[in-house]
Amino acid sequence: MNIGLIPAKTARMQPQQPALIDIPNDRRISYGELDERVRRLANGLLAGLQVEKGDRVAVLSKNCIEYMELYFACARIGLVLQPLNWRLGTAELARIIEDGEPRALAYAGDFDEVVDALGTQVTIPHWLRFGSDGTYEQLLAGASSEEPAVAASVGDHDPVLILYTGGTTGRSKGALHTHRSLFTGMVNQTVAERVQRDDVYMLTGQMFHIPVVLAMNYMAHGCPVVLINFEARLALEVIQRERVSAFLGVTTMLNWMMAVEDFDRFDLSSLRNIQYGGGPMPRKVVEAALQAFPCTIIQGYGQTEGMTMSFLSQEDHSAAVDGRHSGRLSSCGREAFMTTLRVVDGQGGDVPRDGMTPGEIIVSSEANMVGYWRQPEQTAETLRDGWLRTGDVATWDEASYVYIVDRAKDMIISGGENIFSTQVEAAIHQHPAVLESAVFGIPDDEWGEAVKAVVVLKPGMSATEAELIKAASEHLASYQKPRSVDFVDSLPKAPTGKILKRDLREPYWREHEKNV
Amino acid sequence: MNIGLIPAKTARMQPQQPALIDIPNDRRISYGELDERVRRLANGLLAGLQVEKGDRVAVLSKNCIEYMELYFACARIGLVLQPLNWRLGTAELARIIEDGEPRALAYAGDFDEVVDALGTQVTIPHWLRFGSDGTYEQLLAGASSEEPAVAASVGDHDPVLILYTGGTTGRSKGALHTHRSLFTGMVNQTVAERVQRDDVYMLTGQMFHIPVVLAMNYMAHGCPVVLINFEARLALEVIQRERVSAFLGVTTMLNWMMAVEDFDRFDLSSLRNIQYGGGPMPRKVVEAALQAFPCTIIQGYGQTEGMTMSFLSQEDHSAAVDGRHSGRLSSCGREAFMTTLRVVDGQGGDVPRDGMTPGEIIVSSEANMVGYWRQPEQTAETLRDGWLRTGDVATWDEASYVYIVDRAKDMIISGGENIFSTQVEAAIHQHPAVLESAVFGIPDDEWGEAVKAVVVLKPGMSATEAELIKAASEHLASYQKPRSVDFVDSLPKAPTGKILKRDLREPYWREHEKNV
Repeated sequence: MNIGLIPAKTARMQPQQPALIDIPNDRRISYGELDERVRRLANGLLAGLQVEKGDRVAVLSKNCIEYMELYFACARIGLVLQPLNWRLGTAELARIIEDGEPRALAYAGDFDEVVDALGTQVTIPHWLRFGSDGTYEQLLAGASSEEPAVAASVGDHDPVLILYTGGTTGRSKGALHTHRSLFTGMVNQTVAERVQRDDVYMLTGQMFHIPVVLAMNYMAHGCPVVLINFEARLALEVIQRERVSAFLGVTTMLNWMMAVEDFDRFDLSSLRNIQYGGGPMPRKVVEAALQAFPCTIIQGYGQTEGMTMSFLSQEDHSAAVDGRHSGRLSSCGREAFMTTLRVVDGQGGDVPRDGMTPGEIIVSSEANMVGYWRQPEQTAETLRDGWLRTGDVATWDEASYVYIVDRAKDMIISGGENIFSTQVEAAIHQHPAVLESAVFGIPDDEWGEAVKAVVVLKPGMSATEAELIKAASEHLASYQKPRSVDFVDSLPKAPTGKILKRDLREPYWREHEKNV
Repeated sequence: MNIGLIPAKTARMQPQQPALIDIPNDRRISYGELDERVRRLANGLLAGLQVEKGDRVAVLSKNCIEYMELYFACARIGLVLQPLNWRLGTAELARIIEDGEPRALAYAGDFDEVVDALGTQVTIPHWLRFGSDGTYEQLLAGASSEEPAVAASVGDHDPVLILYTGGTTGRSKGALHTHRSLFTGMVNQTVAERVQRDDVYMLTGQMFHIPVVLAMNYMAHGCPVVLINFEARLALEVIQRERVSAFLGVTTMLNWMMAVEDFDRFDLSSLRNIQYGGGPMPRKVVEAALQAFPCTIIQGYGQTEGMTMSFLSQEDHSAAVDGRHSGRLSSCGREAFMTTLRVVDGQGGDVPRDGMTPGEIIVSSEANMVGYWRQPEQTAETLRDGWLRTGDVATWDEASYVYIVDRAKDMIISGGENIFSTQVEAAIHQHPAVLESAVFGIPDDEWGEAVKAVVVLKPGMSATEAELIKAASEHLASYQKPRSVDFVDSLPKAPTGKILKRDLREPYWREHEKNV
C-alpha cells in the first residue's frame, strides 16, 4: 500500500468526483484533477529539486488543497512530509526544521513574514511558495504528468510522515509514521466509522495534526473532503451546503455548534456520524448531541504516536443513553480492530478487569509510529518490546472497556489518597451552569496537594464557588471534592483541543520543588 | 497479521463471548474455550506430529467447531490447511491429497468409509479422527495450552490455505493464499458489509469454500458465528433463535427461504445485512428480498483466486429499487476498497467505459492468491504482471460499475452475433412463473449455435415453451431469443450455487468437434 496512490483509485474510476472542497480559499478540485497535480508535483520534486527517497519536505500552511497535494505527492515517491504547526513561534519552528533537515519548505503566502524570519535562522535548499505566481505552481507547470516510476516500489515500511506531538508535556518530538502505520490506522477508522462511499467528510482540524489521516481515509474510499478553518456557525453552514455526512469534533466544538443561536434552522439531515475525541464527553453533552445532531456518535481515543487506539461505538452511545451500561459513557471504549490494548501495572502484568484498579494503557499495533525522529532514547522509553507506553492511567472492566482516570502526571495525591481529576470534573459538570472545567492539584502544606478547579460558565449563566463545590460534593467522596474554584472566560488549550493543565498548574507550583 | 491469532483477541477481551454455535452438532464454544483448544491443537501438531512451517494438513468434514479450530491452529504455527470438498468422489479426493502431500488428514466420523477407501490409495503419515474418543481429541488432551512460540514469527507472506476451485471448468486447481491475502480480503469484506461488533454471522456454505473467510472475518471482529448445513426452514429458525444479523446467500437460497410457507411467522428483526453472490439477482428477486428481509442487501463478485473483488452496495440496491440507476441491479458493482479492477481488451488496454464494449475483468489486489499450488504454468497464465485474469467478460459504465456479460466460454455465437446468456436469462425471468433458468448454445447447422434455455418453474405455476419464448422476445433482439426451452425440476449446481452449464451443455455437444 502506497498512501500516495490514494487519489489515483477514484481518479481512475470516477475522475469527475469531487475530491477537495477548500472553503477558506473557495476552490474545488476533482479526483481526476487532483491526481494529475499530485503526479506533476511528484515529478517536479524528483526532477526539479533532485530529492531522493527518504528526504523530508516541510510545509507551513493552513488547510488548503496544496497541503493535501503535498501529502500524496511526497508519499507517492517515498519522501517524508514534515508538517509544521503554524501556531508555534519562529524559534520553535526553526528548531523543528533543524530537527527534520528538509530539502524543501512549501508554504502559503500568509506566512511570508515567518518564512522571512526563518530564512535567517535555518538553511533549506528549496522554498516553494503557493499561489498562482509562486514557485510551487511553477514546479508543477514544468513537470510531467506521467506516473513516477518509483511509486511502484514505495509503501509498507517506508517512512512517510513526521508529526510533531502537541507539546502539552515539554518539547515537541517528531512521531515517525510509515505507509503501513498510516494505512493500519485508516483501517481502524474505517471499521469504527463504518465509512461509506457516499460520505462527505469535513476536516475540522489543521493538517499538521494526526486527524488529517481520517480525512485521507475518506479519500481512500473516494469521498469528497471539505476543508475549513473551524468556526461553529461556519461548520453548520458548510454541513448544510455541502451535505457533510461525517466529521471529527472535540467536545468544545460540539458545544459551540449547539450553542449557535439559530442552530435549529440549519439542515443537518446529511449527517451520518460524528466522532469526538480528547476524552469522554459529559453525559449531558452526549445526550444533547444525540438530540441535536440527526446521526450516530462515536468516541475515539488516540495519540499522535498510535493514532486512534480505542473506540466507544455507535451502539455503546445509544445503549448508554437508553440506560443500558450507562457508565460506559465515561469510557473511551475498547481496542480498535487492528490494535491490542492492555492496562498494566508497574511490572507489566494486566491489572484486574474490575473497573477499579488503575494501570497504564499500553498498545501494540501496526498503526503505532515506528519511533521518534532522531530520538533513540525517547523512542526506547516509549516503544518497549513492541508496546507503545501511552502515559495514560486507566481502569478496565470485565468487557475490556477502558476508563481513563488521568494522565499519569495529572493524578492528584492528597492526604495519601489518589484523586483523579477527570472524576472531579465529571462531578462539577453536574451543575447546569458549567461549560468547561479543569481540575488539578495545588500545593497544600497540610495535605500535600489540594484539589483546585478552574471553571468556564455557560454564556448568560452564573454560579458561585460554594454552589459548585456543593453540587460536586454530592457525587464525590469528601477527600475528592474541590477545595477552591476559580472562574475564567476560557481555558488554555493545545491545538488538538486538549486543555493545557500545565499552564494552569504552573503558577501555583513555581515556588515549589515538586512540579508534577 | 497472523490469521491464526484471530480468536485470541476476543478471548483476551471477553472470554465468555460465544465464538461458534454449531447447529448440526448442537454445541457451543466461547472465545476463551476456542482459543485454548486452538493453542492445544497447535502445540499437539507441533509436538505430536512433528510438523514444520509450510507443511500441509488436510481436512475432510462438514461444518463443525473442529474445522474452525484447524483453520486457526494451522495458521497460528505456519501450517497450510488443505480443505477437501467432501462432495467429490474418492478418486478425485485421492488426486487432490497427492497434490497437497499433507502430513495429516483430519476428518469427521461421517467420512469413515471414504477415509478407509482413501487409506488404500494415498499415504498420509497421520490420521486425526474427530469425536470424544478420537485421535484428534487425544492430541489436544496431551498438548500444552501455552502460546506456541512460533506464532510470533508467522504472518504476512506465509502461505496458509490451499482452496481447490469449484471445478466448474475442468480439473480443480489449488489456489494458494497467504495470511496477507486472506486478511486483505477480510478488510474488503469489512468495508462492504460494514461489520459491527454486535453482529451474529450465519455461515451458510461449506468451509472448504472461500466464503469461510467471511465467517473468519466476523470472528476477527469478535462476533459469534453460527454453523449450519443450509436448509431454508432451518436457516429461518436459526436466524430467529440466534438473532443472526448477517449471512451470505446465493440467489437460490434467498428464493427458497422466501418460498417457505409460513415465512411471515419468523422473527427476522435481528437481520442487518445480507450479501448475495453467484451473479446479479433478477430485479424482482431483489425487490422481493428487500421487502421480505428487514435489512440491507449487498452483492459481492469474487473468485476463489481473488476473494470478493467488487461489490454492489447497500445504497446501490435501495437507489435502484427506488428507480435511480435501476440498471445497476444487473451490475456486480465496483472494485472493492483494497482492490483494483479493470475491464480490458485483448491488448490489455481498458475498454471504453460505455456500458457496451465487452472486455475481460482483470484484478490487482493483495487479496489475490499468490498462485496455483504446484501449477507454475497455470499460475503464469492466470496471474500476469500482478493481474489476476478472471476469464469473466464484462462491460463497465462511466462510474466504473461492472456488468458481467458472461464467462468467456459461455458466450453464444449465432449467425456471427455474440449472444450473452445472462441477457437472455434476464429476459426469461420477466415471465412470472420462472424460478431459475440456464441459457447456453447448442449446435445448429444453419447458424453455428442456437440459443437453448432450460427452465425451472415456481412450485404450483405453469408456462409453455411458446409463452416463455414470447415473453423473453419482448426484451431481446430477434437473434437473441431462445429457439427452444426445456423444463426441468432442478438445475445441476456446484456447491457454491453456480449453475453447472457444462453439464447441461455437454449432451448436445458430445458428437460435435467444437465443445466450448
